[in-house]
Amino acid sequence: MERNNILEIFSYNMKRLRQNAKITQEELSFRSGLHKNYISDAERGKRNISLKAIEKLAKGLEIELTEFFLLNN
Amino acid sequence: MERNNILEIFSYNMKRLRQNAKITQEELSFRSGLHKNYISDAERGKRNISLKAIEKLAKGLEIELTEFFLLNN
Repeated sequence: MERNNILEIFSYNMKRLRQNAKITQEELSFRSGLHKNYISDAERGKRNISLKAIEKLAKGLEIELTEFFLLNN
Repeated sequence: MERNNILEIFSYNMKRLRQNAKITQEELSFRSGLHKNYISDAERGKRNISLKAIEKLAKGLEIELTEFFLLNN
């Protein structure tokens, strides 16, 4: 699948990384301090999220920031 | 230098990448369509910028998204 814009790239990686971590959206919500509706929207590419929110998600998923922006995986 | 949060990491890399490209803040403003004050603020870690703005900057600098988030460079 080709992902053409940053919302598609980020949301695809976010969902993939959460599933790899074997945690639910609710658990990621708890770990990141972001609302579960926000998590759900972000994974569907419906949120133009900010740097600080990205950092919270990376900490909740225990990943490096760059992993959210990889193109081929 | 150790960079401890995402604003420090992003802003450091953004400035470094712009300087590597040998362009001014004004030129990056023109290329990205973002105001030059916005560019200046972002390079000083004063803006919690969003995914769509990050994409505009990456296109203006002709770089991969991951380059903004590298820790050691």
